[in-house]
Amino acid sequence: MKIKLRENIIEFQDDMTLLAIAKSISDSFAKTVIAAKVDGTLMDLNTKLKKDAEVEFITFKTEEGRRIYRHSAAHILAQAVKRIFPTVRVAIGPAIENGFYYDFDFRTNITQDDLVTIEKEMIKIIKEDIPIIREPKSRKEALKFFFDYQESYKIELINELPADAQITVYRQGDFVDLCKGPHVPSTGYIKAVKLTSLTGAYWRGDEQNKMLTRIYGTAFDKKTDLEAYLLQLAEAKMRDHNKLGRELGYFMTDECIGQGLPLLMPKGAKLFKILNRFIEDEEEKRGYLLTKTPFMAKSKLYKMSGHWEHYKDGMFIIGDPEKDAEVFALRPMTCPFQYTIYNNGLKSYRDLPIRYGETSSLFRNESSGEMHGLIRVRQFTISEGHIICMPSQLESEFKGCLDLAQYVLNCLGLLEDVSFRFSRWDEKDNAKYINDPVAWEYAEGEMKKILDNIGLKYTESIGDAAFYGPKLDIQIKNVHGKEDTLITIQIDMFLSERFDMSYIDENGDKIRPYIIHRTSLGCYERTMALLIEKYKGAMPLWFAPDQILVMSLTDRTADYVAAIAEILRKSGFRVKTDTRNEKIGYKIREGQIEKIPYMLILGDKEKNDNMLSVRSRSSGDLGTMTLEEFVTKLNKEIDEKVCK
Amino acid sequence: MKIKLRENIIEFQDDMTLLAIAKSISDSFAKTVIAAKVDGTLMDLNTKLKKDAEVEFITFKTEEGRRIYRHSAAHILAQAVKRIFPTVRVAIGPAIENGFYYDFDFRTNITQDDLVTIEKEMIKIIKEDIPIIREPKSRKEALKFFFDYQESYKIELINELPADAQITVYRQGDFVDLCKGPHVPSTGYIKAVKLTSLTGAYWRGDEQNKMLTRIYGTAFDKKTDLEAYLLQLAEAKMRDHNKLGRELGYFMTDECIGQGLPLLMPKGAKLFKILNRFIEDEEEKRGYLLTKTPFMAKSKLYKMSGHWEHYKDGMFIIGDPEKDAEVFALRPMTCPFQYTIYNNGLKSYRDLPIRYGETSSLFRNESSGEMHGLIRVRQFTISEGHIICMPSQLESEFKGCLDLAQYVLNCLGLLEDVSFRFSRWDEKDNAKYINDPVAWEYAEGEMKKILDNIGLKYTESIGDAAFYGPKLDIQIKNVHGKEDTLITIQIDMFLSERFDMSYIDENGDKIRPYIIHRTSLGCYERTMALLIEKYKGAMPLWFAPDQILVMSLTDRTADYVAAIAEILRKSGFRVKTDTRNEKIGYKIREGQIEKIPYMLILGDKEKNDNMLSVRSRSSGDLGTMTLEEFVTKLNKEIDEKVCK
Repeated sequence: MKIKLRENIIEFQDDMTLLAIAKSISDSFAKTVIAAKVDGTLMDLNTKLKKDAEVEFITFKTEEGRRIYRHSAAHILAQAVKRIFPTVRVAIGPAIENGFYYDFDFRTNITQDDLVTIEKEMIKIIKEDIPIIREPKSRKEALKFFFDYQESYKIELINELPADAQITVYRQGDFVDLCKGPHVPSTGYIKAVKLTSLTGAYWRGDEQNKMLTRIYGTAFDKKTDLEAYLLQLAEAKMRDHNKLGRELGYFMTDECIGQGLPLLMPKGAKLFKILNRFIEDEEEKRGYLLTKTPFMAKSKLYKMSGHWEHYKDGMFIIGDPEKDAEVFALRPMTCPFQYTIYNNGLKSYRDLPIRYGETSSLFRNESSGEMHGLIRVRQFTISEGHIICMPSQLESEFKGCLDLAQYVLNCLGLLEDVSFRFSRWDEKDNAKYINDPVAWEYAEGEMKKILDNIGLKYTESIGDAAFYGPKLDIQIKNVHGKEDTLITIQIDMFLSERFDMSYIDENGDKIRPYIIHRTSLGCYERTMALLIEKYKGAMPLWFAPDQILVMSLTDRTADYVAAIAEILRKSGFRVKTDTRNEKIGYKIREGQIEKIPYMLILGDKEKNDNMLSVRSRSSGDLGTMTLEEFVTKLNKEIDEKVCK
Repeated sequence: MKIKLRENIIEFQDDMTLLAIAKSISDSFAKTVIAAKVDGTLMDLNTKLKKDAEVEFITFKTEEGRRIYRHSAAHILAQAVKRIFPTVRVAIGPAIENGFYYDFDFRTNITQDDLVTIEKEMIKIIKEDIPIIREPKSRKEALKFFFDYQESYKIELINELPADAQITVYRQGDFVDLCKGPHVPSTGYIKAVKLTSLTGAYWRGDEQNKMLTRIYGTAFDKKTDLEAYLLQLAEAKMRDHNKLGRELGYFMTDECIGQGLPLLMPKGAKLFKILNRFIEDEEEKRGYLLTKTPFMAKSKLYKMSGHWEHYKDGMFIIGDPEKDAEVFALRPMTCPFQYTIYNNGLKSYRDLPIRYGETSSLFRNESSGEMHGLIRVRQFTISEGHIICMPSQLESEFKGCLDLAQYVLNCLGLLEDVSFRFSRWDEKDNAKYINDPVAWEYAEGEMKKILDNIGLKYTESIGDAAFYGPKLDIQIKNVHGKEDTLITIQIDMFLSERFDMSYIDENGDKIRPYIIHRTSLGCYERTMALLIEKYKGAMPLWFAPDQILVMSLTDRTADYVAAIAEILRKSGFRVKTDTRNEKIGYKIREGQIEKIPYMLILGDKEKNDNMLSVRSRSSGDLGTMTLEEFVTKLNKEIDEKVCK
């Protein structure tokens, strides 16, 4: 048979396995191969080829390869668990980004300690190098098989497969799992494995179902890569805003208040205030007009805007739409409110562009399972803006939005971490979008032209547009490697029509304006989480909630501390004092834990000389300086918005 | 018979009318008498006395007298309407503060013009001096009577009277009304009457019922008093924030969004921002810690706080408490959220007092009928604060709250308009208050002691406390004379128990703290309404949304306008420019209409001399000055927070 490998066509004997073909190339190459694509279909390496085909070998270097590899590791996990806990029932165990998990229904309580035992058993199984064998089964056979083993979750899954589905199981010694595959040829293929955590998870993610135990792990083809990854994980955990943000007193959550409803504590509220004033002042400089509109409205408004049709499930509704004549809904977006303000009074071409800005609380009814720290929340805050302009102003206004976003990101030190995504509609997804292909083509064309004129490097993504228009999304990865949209700039071709918005042009004609939706910092809560993680809680001076900690060395200098603190406060700095009768080393340590950028240590000498002993969070002791020198130094750092 | 009149007992013939007795004192006195109280019961002057009694004559000088007088005027209104529109059906017509109204069910549309005709007819009826006669009726007679006249509203009212009710009608010539009385003896008693307005009103205030036509009017016993009142009314109307605030672009409302949900337009949002920053900065100076907590929580939280029991009807609830396992409610107050933050981590006596502040959006489910401009709203904003302190700190903290409130009021120019009210619980109203008489007595005693120590002049009001404690309310009257609570300072003896709040004292014991609830500016929306009305929209410089309007005299000075505006903006002023090619008189007029405190008029001469021509909103032309002089002048006015 003729096998095409990359650009070469090579003659092999019929019935050779893919593994044998890989070995025929080189033994060392074969060792890196995990599976293969035969004429585009993923297959086990044990598969025997019977006819001409195009073969692509899959290694750990590709995402597909890593997923197969880690999926096999998940099977090894399940096998280990079944060996140790014979009464367990297994649910599902897929590969995920950076690892895998398996959900189990244990009869007993499992703790972190058990993970160590399970991991040891996994390593044993790997050493046993058990072959992993694919076995096709009829539906009847498969059902009987899992019935015999009392694997009720598998039976539920089989019963939901379509009638003509090809059912396969994978066997590795004493363990058999329902699985489409492919897998590595034997357990010995797994070189480095680690179980990372343990959590509860509802069967099929549904709160109505039983809570199972999910064990997370990861696997690598090199021990060193695993170690590097675990180090990165530990680092991410240390930076995790959901841990660090609580420890440093930025926020808390409370069971009585509810999931996804974080409370900003004084430090977090102060950071919020600093960022909020920065944004509102910058927007005012750039000609934005502030509005402040209600957080709820009658459903009538959302029916007009299209939110009721396209976004109702995501909204909190007050009242019963089936029973009540009129219900209210908390707003998921500010758009229709600012359009209502635009429509108050006739507008002329001389009034345009109008740039409305509002620091807006928004509400989205996410399911409890998705809540996370400051990142996935039910109530959040955005400095939202809508620019209403003439068609001829669209490009310059769009550029203005991008410039503002980049300026803000740069001030926060985040610009280096972002990428740009041109998010387009999916014409096949009728429910999600206002279905007007001509308008979409036009708007996406306009946006593409503008992006290309700017010379921005961007990726394209189909199906990520807003329901009313294409978006430029500014994407950022958090410390866990998860990508999220931070800022978005959108062109809207539909809502001006729906809200009957217009302006009178030079000729006295009534014209529909163009609208840009945009954010300039994104969701404050999410941005705060990113900042905590990026800076490990050590916020740059200009937006640090507390900038200076003034400490007394002895009780005799408490008055000097108070006097200096007062002057610094009047100069606009955010100052804390510590005149407790504690050792200075203890006080400094507390200041370091609180990550305050500058500390002043004031003893008799400083008081007598009218000087300051200055300590920087990052560089340690800076020696003594005058108050004036200190203020000048800090003001320079603040004015330049130094991010370190 | 012996009649006691004030301190005298006088012998009169039996069967003398009250009017005759009044006349026996003096004719001129009798002319001022409207009705009389006989042994404490109000009666018509035509009533004949049969036995010894104590009599108190009622004149227009008392609220009771004015109400009887104006109630008679309401009957005259109904008589006039029935004469002109014989098919009308009459509903009810009570006296109200400053006047009266009558609700009619007209067959035709009534306009403002009709009021003139009706008023003429009323004056005719007054001139006819028709006697007003009381007639007791049996229920059957009364029902037959109003049935014959097809007065269905009256029949509905009669049917709802208790079985043993004494039914009376009052007859004046061709007009008869169901009425308890009393009334003036004849229509000629009414000296000055005016119909003021026309509005729709649901029968019995219920949206489910028919919309009737309500005619408002007022009556005085002197023409000059009526004229003075009408002038005051016109003045109030001119200042009315609900009119002026919309005209000046402070706010708007929209039918699609809903009643009681005003949208702050750019000018209103800017004023809000200025006030908000002022408050938050002042509170920070006074040691407040900012928080930012969610706008909703699970019902569990409100059950703990007592809001669910005492305030549920006033809350917006998301979900159905009957059906859903857990429901959310929008917050009507911030207290439980800040207590939750307090409870995060152990507190020591060294941490107290803790002063939490938060600019809080609150939601109260008021009925649609009560909504009004920025004053009665469903969503509003308060800089709420809670001080958690040791018992020994209560007095000084309370004083601190009062000092802050007085400082803020003084800065806004409102201090001269307020009065103080000590609001206590009503021990008979069990449903409204946490029922613990000992605790109430203690807390009210404490508050009284503090108020008396401060030497504050205050009134007392039973039944106006919060459900959890007594309040010091700072009351203000709006331009319509209606009194409202602007600021409140409350002592809470219950919620620290309910939330299990504590601190560790010097001896290591766990102690319940005291709590003060307080506002420092009150509801922003309401305060903004008051400010608009007080200053007729001409806001003092320091909080004027736009402070300076820079205008070009000719096209040649547009660049000079831009340069000056830029410098002023960088100096922190809020600046608008007008370089349109319009006559300068026209531009100045627009600036005056917008009530901008200062205008700069820049022509060739100013540009060449590098000077400014300055115009003040209040004092007109101020001549020329240098930029530096102008900036110094304005900064002084701002620093001193001059309110004019």
